[in-house]
Amino acid sequence: MKDGYVFARGATDNKGQILSHILGIQETIEEHHELPVNLHLVIEGEEEIGSANLGSFLKQNRGALKCDVAVVSDTGMVARGVPTLSYGLRGVTALEVKVTGPKMDLHSGVFGGAVANPITALAQLLATLHDREGRVAIAGFYDRVKPLEDWEREAWRKLPVDGDKLILEETGAPELFGEAGYNSMERIWARPTAEINGIGGGYQGQGTKTVIASHAIAKLTFRLVPDQSGDEILELAKAHLQKNLPKGVTIEITMGHSGPWYLTDPHSSLGEAAQRALRKAFNRDVALIREGGSIPIVSEFREILGIETLLMGLALPDCRAHSPNENFEGGIRLNKAILQELAH
Amino acid sequence: MKDGYVFARGATDNKGQILSHILGIQETIEEHHELPVNLHLVIEGEEEIGSANLGSFLKQNRGALKCDVAVVSDTGMVARGVPTLSYGLRGVTALEVKVTGPKMDLHSGVFGGAVANPITALAQLLATLHDREGRVAIAGFYDRVKPLEDWEREAWRKLPVDGDKLILEETGAPELFGEAGYNSMERIWARPTAEINGIGGGYQGQGTKTVIASHAIAKLTFRLVPDQSGDEILELAKAHLQKNLPKGVTIEITMGHSGPWYLTDPHSSLGEAAQRALRKAFNRDVALIREGGSIPIVSEFREILGIETLLMGLALPDCRAHSPNENFEGGIRLNKAILQELAH
Repeated sequence: MKDGYVFARGATDNKGQILSHILGIQETIEEHHELPVNLHLVIEGEEEIGSANLGSFLKQNRGALKCDVAVVSDTGMVARGVPTLSYGLRGVTALEVKVTGPKMDLHSGVFGGAVANPITALAQLLATLHDREGRVAIAGFYDRVKPLEDWEREAWRKLPVDGDKLILEETGAPELFGEAGYNSMERIWARPTAEINGIGGGYQGQGTKTVIASHAIAKLTFRLVPDQSGDEILELAKAHLQKNLPKGVTIEITMGHSGPWYLTDPHSSLGEAAQRALRKAFNRDVALIREGGSIPIVSEFREILGIETLLMGLALPDCRAHSPNENFEGGIRLNKAILQELAH
Repeated sequence: MKDGYVFARGATDNKGQILSHILGIQETIEEHHELPVNLHLVIEGEEEIGSANLGSFLKQNRGALKCDVAVVSDTGMVARGVPTLSYGLRGVTALEVKVTGPKMDLHSGVFGGAVANPITALAQLLATLHDREGRVAIAGFYDRVKPLEDWEREAWRKLPVDGDKLILEETGAPELFGEAGYNSMERIWARPTAEINGIGGGYQGQGTKTVIASHAIAKLTFRLVPDQSGDEILELAKAHLQKNLPKGVTIEITMGHSGPWYLTDPHSSLGEAAQRALRKAFNRDVALIREGGSIPIVSEFREILGIETLLMGLALPDCRAHSPNENFEGGIRLNKAILQELAH
């Protein structure tokens, strides 16, 4: 293994992570007068607007960026001081629904009762997306979902963190709720979802307006897990929405873009190198986890550059409240350690 | 019967109706040199902002406004040239629902799957308001609803108008939809409804935002028919919403104001006088109908002044497109005729 590859995300909240990459490299050079691996350092500033140019940059510089592995620090530690290797991410795909009834907004006194209300129809339609136990009710939705491996469920149960408690504290939700048969971490890290991210129709201002809206919209995203295909899920969702459309309205569905899930083997030789570096930097057992969010570029690394990515993040679960030096210094140690480990 | 009472609504689209009142009175005075009945003429300009001061005006002037009957022209003709007496109106009552989950908007990758989505919960909740046949599914909702009288259904079926066709043309809805067992006119004129007038939550802008909203709201109104009570319907709706609330969210319900339904006997001596005047003015059989909208002041006339109201409107079903002189002149003839008929 000769070529390492460091990729640091440009999001504002990751400035410390970027700096820990750079300082880890700098200290390595100071101590050893050279780097143990070749290194490409890529820093982008467009993550928050969808990384529109990074993929084409990778394609255009495929030759120059040739390497063996990527290291990305845009993930989190499962708990303060616990070195964490994230070996999976969920993907995401998006869809917008517009339900239309009358050609214009109507007076609910003059017409109410004789024509379908598009908001009511949309609510009825969206209510068919899940059963009451939190399971997505779209036919075929789970067909390609890879079951959790026994070792994963086992490892996650032993993590030094109370996932349920953490989520309740962080979100302030009145209670936990999700797919029956899974705990919170399993739900977030390894199970797909159908979320309604936005809904709108009719009068939303102060007071009352007795209107039957002409139309109503909803914005949906689906979090994807191995081995679901974003395009296939969109087709299944579209068929479901069309099939379950209530009477008296029409539907328009706009398909969005898909970002794929990611899953790599934490027990591969690269994964083991990452685990050794993490253990060295933090002097504790390494947590092997997945994450619920999406980092589409990781799949582009795999597709375009043909490499796996080691997700060794430093964000703490409560990072909104703290940005402790201890973690930043751990990050520098980690970056030094992974350079050495990848050279073996 | 000595005191007539003319009440003309001040809405912009009723200027012609107000003028037909005034010209009818003027021509009567010119022809007979006196009015056959005493007359109070009340014109208000606040209908579009809820007629906030009219009720208290009636209370303060109860003595001065003492009379036998009110005549209101804020209703419509069932078809061009068909004299129409509206003997019933629906009432209306309002309610707002807010469903809350997490204390702030969440990232759907980081938390999606482990907490309830308030928009999803709201959609599921609103979907319980109706069955798939258009019937309101709130327990007790229809308990006090007075069934349509046989003579009403019979009379409405014979009206010289195709209600279904008219509603499809006017609304542009893809098809008719409403409570099973009733035709469009019956649904609008004599059956109660639960309408969602507005819904909102999460991201409604362009593109996608992978957010789990902290909360979502819906604005509901219920059209009321005899003998429903607005306050009772609100209590039943509140109980229904609380009982059917999905897991993982909390609910806040804000009750709005109620305007009562109205029903008077078109075959009373006053109703017969109105029918004679209508027949005289338009030289055709009089259509006896109800209307689906609400004119709360009509109930205030009954409560505060102790009088019934004759709803003899001149608006045409297609009044947005036309404002023909023929109807305006008919209105003048009608106002002259009703003054004479009420004097008998």
